[in-house]
Amino acid sequence: MDIQELTRNLHVKNDSKIVMLVADGLGGLPLEPGGKTELETANTPHLDALAQRGVQGGSIPVLPGISPGSGPGHLGLFGYDPLKYLIGRGALEATGIGFELAEGDVAIRCNFTSMDTDGNITDRRAGRIPTEESAPIARRLREVTIEGIEIFVEPVKEHRFVVVFRGEGLAGDVNDTDPQTTGVPPLEPEPRNAESVKTAKIAAEFYTEARELLKDEPKANGLTMRGFSGKPNLPTYEEVYGLRAAAIAVYPMYRGLARLVGMDIVGKAQTLDEQMDVLKENWDNYDFFFIHFKYTDSTGEDGNFDAKVKRTEEVDAVIPRIVELNPTVLIVTGDHSTPSFLANHSWHPVPTLLVAPACRTDACQAFGERDSLQGGLGQFEAKYLMSLALANAGRMGKFGA
Amino acid sequence: MDIQELTRNLHVKNDSKIVMLVADGLGGLPLEPGGKTELETANTPHLDALAQRGVQGGSIPVLPGISPGSGPGHLGLFGYDPLKYLIGRGALEATGIGFELAEGDVAIRCNFTSMDTDGNITDRRAGRIPTEESAPIARRLREVTIEGIEIFVEPVKEHRFVVVFRGEGLAGDVNDTDPQTTGVPPLEPEPRNAESVKTAKIAAEFYTEARELLKDEPKANGLTMRGFSGKPNLPTYEEVYGLRAAAIAVYPMYRGLARLVGMDIVGKAQTLDEQMDVLKENWDNYDFFFIHFKYTDSTGEDGNFDAKVKRTEEVDAVIPRIVELNPTVLIVTGDHSTPSFLANHSWHPVPTLLVAPACRTDACQAFGERDSLQGGLGQFEAKYLMSLALANAGRMGKFGA
Repeated sequence: MDIQELTRNLHVKNDSKIVMLVADGLGGLPLEPGGKTELETANTPHLDALAQRGVQGGSIPVLPGISPGSGPGHLGLFGYDPLKYLIGRGALEATGIGFELAEGDVAIRCNFTSMDTDGNITDRRAGRIPTEESAPIARRLREVTIEGIEIFVEPVKEHRFVVVFRGEGLAGDVNDTDPQTTGVPPLEPEPRNAESVKTAKIAAEFYTEARELLKDEPKANGLTMRGFSGKPNLPTYEEVYGLRAAAIAVYPMYRGLARLVGMDIVGKAQTLDEQMDVLKENWDNYDFFFIHFKYTDSTGEDGNFDAKVKRTEEVDAVIPRIVELNPTVLIVTGDHSTPSFLANHSWHPVPTLLVAPACRTDACQAFGERDSLQGGLGQFEAKYLMSLALANAGRMGKFGA
Repeated sequence: MDIQELTRNLHVKNDSKIVMLVADGLGGLPLEPGGKTELETANTPHLDALAQRGVQGGSIPVLPGISPGSGPGHLGLFGYDPLKYLIGRGALEATGIGFELAEGDVAIRCNFTSMDTDGNITDRRAGRIPTEESAPIARRLREVTIEGIEIFVEPVKEHRFVVVFRGEGLAGDVNDTDPQTTGVPPLEPEPRNAESVKTAKIAAEFYTEARELLKDEPKANGLTMRGFSGKPNLPTYEEVYGLRAAAIAVYPMYRGLARLVGMDIVGKAQTLDEQMDVLKENWDNYDFFFIHFKYTDSTGEDGNFDAKVKRTEEVDAVIPRIVELNPTVLIVTGDHSTPSFLANHSWHPVPTLLVAPACRTDACQAFGERDSLQGGLGQFEAKYLMSLALANAGRMGKFGA
């Protein structure tokens, strides 16, 4: 019995409201030993005030030493064991551009490649062709037709695009065609089981037709197909927690991840302030609100310490707008750390704050990496955050008598 | 390999003594943020002295956010994964009233119900009939006879009673007959497997005979049957730890739980002081002593902060009587938190203190929720407490060479 089976069996309903504010990549590192992290450097009076009446800890996104991508990072926060619920790369890429996968679809991440006249790959990324060149080429591949199959082709970025097959009898267990080297042709799409034979056949057909359409392209005259995958089959927030959940996110990836766990995507906010407007407008209609803020991660990935500090202060500035709605449980966390020192996602525990009447306040006076080490939540796997949220919302019955 | 397989394989024997003092529901909450908990408020000079030479931590009874009942709470402390060893509700109810289940018995929690003349339930709890009325009615059901089956009927409280079937070929996989609503008759007892067909048949027969015996009752003229379950099959302390274990508990539930893991129930103490007498009298005959104190939980459940403080001080007062026996390992903990703020069991980690020569003393100066956050045991799942106890008692061999 895992934590999700427990919440599924024990949850009860009431009128409480839970807000989970995710500052993507929130955790950080100092630029030199003994220095302050981005969060510790930022002037965050509202978060610090919450820290004084809440309980703090360090969320381990997956397991110690594991740096997650956005998919497993968010699944963990949503209470879905990221080692149990694996989202295929194709499905994640489709989700990331806001493509709404249907049951039975197969999504594939494709790369444009450069090919020589013998059909061997000369560049696996088509010279990192810029998006403004590659996107029209990707869209041209919509001309491919295969009987009985609906085909979607969506540009992503540079050499990357997504293909989705929709039709009867498709499954996603097909091997990548990327040979991971140059001087050879792409591999044939090989099915790994009987259910995927048709998908492999269609992929081969797609490849042949696409090559014909691309034959005059100087750089992007070939393609490889990777991460074949169907729509992930995740239980919903309603099933697992009894929560009507809303996602207030700007970027397609996070809207897509929220949709996969059954959240409604509400509003069309483009800024954190607009997200707060959407939160207020929808307050009465939902029990749980996931609010996503991207820029603590992107500034971290840029290796821009000062910019990340500034973005963290933007998060702090909107806290009063959440507090004035008086949520029963307010959580501030991140899906992983993105220290600007590393300019990358990292494995470090993410400072996590939970404020609720019965949270057992600890002695922390500020919100930050070092404070969180003294916090009452200790260090915990992200997948336990939702059971803590439900418990603090009075939404969990007793286990056993 | 889980912790029990490790202790089973690695334990060794010696002359050490381990005492586990369980103050039920020990953990608490302050009445307002920043305030003190019951344990922090209580004057506990002896526990604080132990804290200065021991090691402290927070025991998570099951998993974060999960509030356990007494059954899973104690199984965890005893080192039995409460998510692996599930005690059926009927068996737990029988255990709770001190009924000693035998191998092959099937125990059932029954509710008296009120029925109309069409045999439909009008009140699922027979108007919450008081115990003094319901107990004689329950005892009257001992007149039911079914060939080849020994039947035990024991009153519990208000509308609740326990029925145990003893005989050949019985198993507990039978569905509840409680329809969870009124205006309909009880459900038939449906077996979920072939082994339980006989049990279901006997349950139906019991129901028919009982209805006849109850027909003139104004309130309690019907019954439902729930939580059919056999005797839980738990390995014993002797098998898992090599410990001769004694339980010194006042209440039947805790004596019953201890018996399920093979502890001897010693003494007939009614007070904590008498429990200390029993401890001393039996000191030479056992390796491990489980001492249970109920009133930190019951005062918490009453929502009576001051009374819980007082009960906590009673626990403190007997500490010298344990210390003078010079146990190798002394543990003070609780099976879960019962904050008077919530008047209920809760999920919060339980302050836990372990004192032993090799315990690696931490810097804590007092015993309490906030101190335990700084303690050397960190936050840990309760199921690991027994391996720590054995190790500190010098009773664990090395794992691997």
